Amino acid sequence: MSNEKKIVQSVPNFSEGRNKEVIERILDPFRKNGNVRLLDYQADADHNRLVVTIIGEVASIAEAILEAVGVAVSLIDLRVHRGAHPRMGAVDVTPFIPLRQTTMEEAAALSRSVGAEIARRHGVPVFLYEKSATAPHRENLASIRKGEFEAMGEKMKDPLWKPDFGPDAPHPSAGVTAVGARMPLIAFNVTLNTEEEGIAAVIARKVRFSGGGFRYCKAISVVLKEKKQVQVSMNLTDFKRSALYSVFEMIRIEAERYGVSISGSEIVGLAPMEALLDVAAHTLRLTHLSAHQIIESRLLD
Amino acid sequence: MSNEKKIVQSVPNFSEGRNKEVIERILDPFRKNGNVRLLDYQADADHNRLVVTIIGEVASIAEAILEAVGVAVSLIDLRVHRGAHPRMGAVDVTPFIPLRQTTMEEAAALSRSVGAEIARRHGVPVFLYEKSATAPHRENLASIRKGEFEAMGEKMKDPLWKPDFGPDAPHPSAGVTAVGARMPLIAFNVTLNTEEEGIAAVIARKVRFSGGGFRYCKAISVVLKEKKQVQVSMNLTDFKRSALYSVFEMIRIEAERYGVSISGSEIVGLAPMEALLDVAAHTLRLTHLSAHQIIESRLLD
Repeated sequence: MSNEKKIVQSVPNFSEGRNKEVIERILDPFRKNGNVRLLDYQADADHNRLVVTIIGEVASIAEAILEAVGVAVSLIDLRVHRGAHPRMGAVDVTPFIPLRQTTMEEAAALSRSVGAEIARRHGVPVFLYEKSATAPHRENLASIRKGEFEAMGEKMKDPLWKPDFGPDAPHPSAGVTAVGARMPLIAFNVTLNTEEEGIAAVIARKVRFSGGGFRYCKAISVVLKEKKQVQVSMNLTDFKRSALYSVFEMIRIEAERYGVSISGSEIVGLAPMEALLDVAAHTLRLTHLSAHQIIESRLLD
Repeated sequence: MSNEKKIVQSVPNFSEGRNKEVIERILDPFRKNGNVRLLDYQADADHNRLVVTIIGEVASIAEAILEAVGVAVSLIDLRVHRGAHPRMGAVDVTPFIPLRQTTMEEAAALSRSVGAEIARRHGVPVFLYEKSATAPHRENLASIRKGEFEAMGEKMKDPLWKPDFGPDAPHPSAGVTAVGARMPLIAFNVTLNTEEEGIAAVIARKVRFSGGGFRYCKAISVVLKEKKQVQVSMNLTDFKRSALYSVFEMIRIEAERYGVSISGSEIVGLAPMEALLDVAAHTLRLTHLSAHQIIESRLLD
């Protein structure tokens, strides 16, 4: 079992969403490495930002990211960068997400070693965030990024904002960057057999953290005009603690109160295998079920 | 999507469970091919039989099996083979099981091409069975094997038992072999909060095909002496038609009648990803969920 591959996901964000040539050069390192898969990338011209989704073995993904960071630092100049999305560096943020045979602590360790190497190779100050943060005020990416590229020189004079790696001042053209570990995010929508948005709004409020609901659940109500139905649209930020089936059951119970049933649900985009196995194990009351029991997953070892 | 890998499982059975050197030489072709994974093998001295479980891409798995068949045909002599398990050939049977991006029809086509090639390269008569059978009386492996190696020469004089490929008489030392396509088998046990075996026996009878229950469900009752509980122990031979959650729910409902609850369940060994995703989709009422949405599975493409 010890020779099983450690697989992580990463979603690096680069501050270039317009220049196709630069975008392609940033993507190259993720395409040429056989142990890394480029799952998706979204280049947004308005945001002027490139969001890349990759998975792969720990060592391979680290090397591919360091190479792409090198490309971005040499080709992107934040001094002339304009876009709708807030940003503080040529590489704005790089989260690492544990997927297979990898713990959150290992993903955090990976973020620290990649962060140290970004500073060493490219001279860019690095802040560790989320589960990798070295202080509570650095956990939230928005807090680190506040003031953006333009204000970062002044902000970093405060010892509170000394970077975890690299120089105490921003890179002249590439700014600063954040690296950290976090859980995968699952986009989960539950559709109700009613046209009344009020009902979806009340339920969304009940299930989300800010309304007193599940700690790792963000929820809003959405109207599906063509279907004449409403939806509770969610992001689950830690499926191990706020489970898919718990959230679903709570919505079902709350909807019942209004005589409303659930017409269906959907997972938007990708989800980690464990999140779905967890639902199956709950339903079947399986006393144990490991990803290792899934036949196809043996090809990942 | 068209460049996704077609992945199948196969469980070839060889008539050698004692001679370690022969066993190792049969296993070699499954170890040296990077696109094939040797998941498991069980060599049983009493049965004098080797059961190998492999997964891999269609083309690679076919080539590895043809090579292993060649080794078995040259090293195993059925004329001196004795063992507790019925057998008709050096390679007794080779099922192909569709797993990913593969339909049952494609698995059957693979079994036909491998069968034809076994006959051509190794001169062994081949019978197609299960979903690949060319006549109803050949679907059941036990019917084909009846009489075993010793009676096969006489049996094949009957046109009903003309092989699908190869000569009309058994190979002198390697006999005949069966090749076919079938669904994966899931071993699923549900444990009841009671010591009374009678209750598990009644429920087993109700859920299994032979008792009027689910078509693709075989079930028996088992006593767990140490736990002081009883179990409904099942083999599900087609999870797409007799689903895990349907069988589980039926057991739950039947047990309720006796005031007995379910204490837990287990999947023994391996199960295909789709069988568990199917349970999750049922519980969450997902209107669609494809294996392609599982992050880790993208590494299989």
